[in-house]
Amino acid sequence: MKNEILYGIHPVAEALKAGRRKFEGCYICAGEKSARLQKIRAQARKQQIQVRTVSAEHLLQLTESDYHQGIAASVSPYPLESIRSMAELMPDPGAGAFFLLLDQILDPQNLGAIIRSALSVGVDGVIIPKNRSAAPTAAVSKASAGALEHTRLIRVTNLADAMRDLKKCGLWLYGLDSAAGHDLFKTDFPRSIGLVIGGEGRGIRPRVKSQCDELIAIPQQGPLDSLNASAAAAVAMYEVLRQRRYLEKRKHQNTRYKKQAKSKFKR
Amino acid sequence: MKNEILYGIHPVAEALKAGRRKFEGCYICAGEKSARLQKIRAQARKQQIQVRTVSAEHLLQLTESDYHQGIAASVSPYPLESIRSMAELMPDPGAGAFFLLLDQILDPQNLGAIIRSALSVGVDGVIIPKNRSAAPTAAVSKASAGALEHTRLIRVTNLADAMRDLKKCGLWLYGLDSAAGHDLFKTDFPRSIGLVIGGEGRGIRPRVKSQCDELIAIPQQGPLDSLNASAAAAVAMYEVLRQRRYLEKRKHQNTRYKKQAKSKFKR
Repeated sequence: MKNEILYGIHPVAEALKAGRRKFEGCYICAGEKSARLQKIRAQARKQQIQVRTVSAEHLLQLTESDYHQGIAASVSPYPLESIRSMAELMPDPGAGAFFLLLDQILDPQNLGAIIRSALSVGVDGVIIPKNRSAAPTAAVSKASAGALEHTRLIRVTNLADAMRDLKKCGLWLYGLDSAAGHDLFKTDFPRSIGLVIGGEGRGIRPRVKSQCDELIAIPQQGPLDSLNASAAAAVAMYEVLRQRRYLEKRKHQNTRYKKQAKSKFKR
Repeated sequence: MKNEILYGIHPVAEALKAGRRKFEGCYICAGEKSARLQKIRAQARKQQIQVRTVSAEHLLQLTESDYHQGIAASVSPYPLESIRSMAELMPDPGAGAFFLLLDQILDPQNLGAIIRSALSVGVDGVIIPKNRSAAPTAAVSKASAGALEHTRLIRVTNLADAMRDLKKCGLWLYGLDSAAGHDLFKTDFPRSIGLVIGGEGRGIRPRVKSQCDELIAIPQQGPLDSLNASAAAAVAMYEVLRQRRYLEKRKHQNTRYKKQAKSKFKR
């Protein structure tokens, strides 16, 4: 597979930390003296990665971006996970699973911003469809401030099929939909869930929506229709986190998990 | 004061709806047939605003932006509120006040995104300093999807002075700071508060921070340091909204308000 050119301080620094990409080389702009770049230079050398000093023109040509911040790296492609079934992704049942599913997030800036929040919340993985999504490019890594480099990102051929599979694993699936009757903050989330976010303006596709167990809305005041996708995703993910961390008494547990646990016990 | 050129479907449509700016004229690109543009055209005519059909080059020259979506309007400057003291801003004490204060949000995209979430939460006003903030330009209106046109935005000379004034009005002031020891989700917000958000990377300035009654952090998992400013603002504002709307029993009321109410009663 062809190498990619990562650019920007955070993407390169986080890719070095995460250790999931093979570095072919690092490129730092001549004359750059910032402490952050020097730190990356030292880290790269420690990991025995060649660091070349290049001209500003060379860097611009290499990255095809004005946002390189004086640094780029030639690295192996983004480590998308290849799985046969969603069951491979499941954490220990006792821990509860929390996956984020993104439908029609086509803008790399939005995808990056959502992935950044998802890492901060600590989701178990972010699932995107092959066709109706921005790809995990260098621009997404930049927009995520490098969060993409640490994120478990899974790309599936068909999101609706993946959702069926996730439900078999015991997850309860919630779709965020501003027209939904159920209020995010009145929802008691079970231990294992998937949260589906649709693209701005476009929303979640009908076939994907029909696989959701429940549609929920973020309450909104005022004359405008909708939060932006990345703000909505952050608010909803943090409500799930809040309930997981701070509510001692859960009003209901994930019944699917219970059933599974029982049937396992019988065997 | 000089007129401004608003551009983009949402900013023009929302400015028409909000009715706070005087329209000198509307400009729609020749050949544009979208239903949304036709709706704006009809609305403008209804409000007896002249609508001119112009060439794409003219529109580009007028807006100096690639993001005009075929529409622009020449309008009076943004209606910033001019106040002598914060007391003029206060809603009825029984209702509780919720103000958002932004320090060092210099990027118009970030300012727009935060204002969009603030309108959605229904804050009573957004307060920005004169010098350390992006100004409420057409680019901010575009980034806010027109939310700026409906928002009560107050620009103050000195944010720390405004905060002192707000405290005199009975508000409790919270600063969002990723290094703070207090957890957002363990905070019981009183009825009347101000929430201070700092710029990405820069944070809240020390003089502003010292005026906060309490610093709170959004809990974060994973290896990265910080949510982006607009995601953090959305999460914190919605936690305040959640507590206001959904918690029937408040563990503590705003003591400042209580004292005020008492002293009023004595007179």
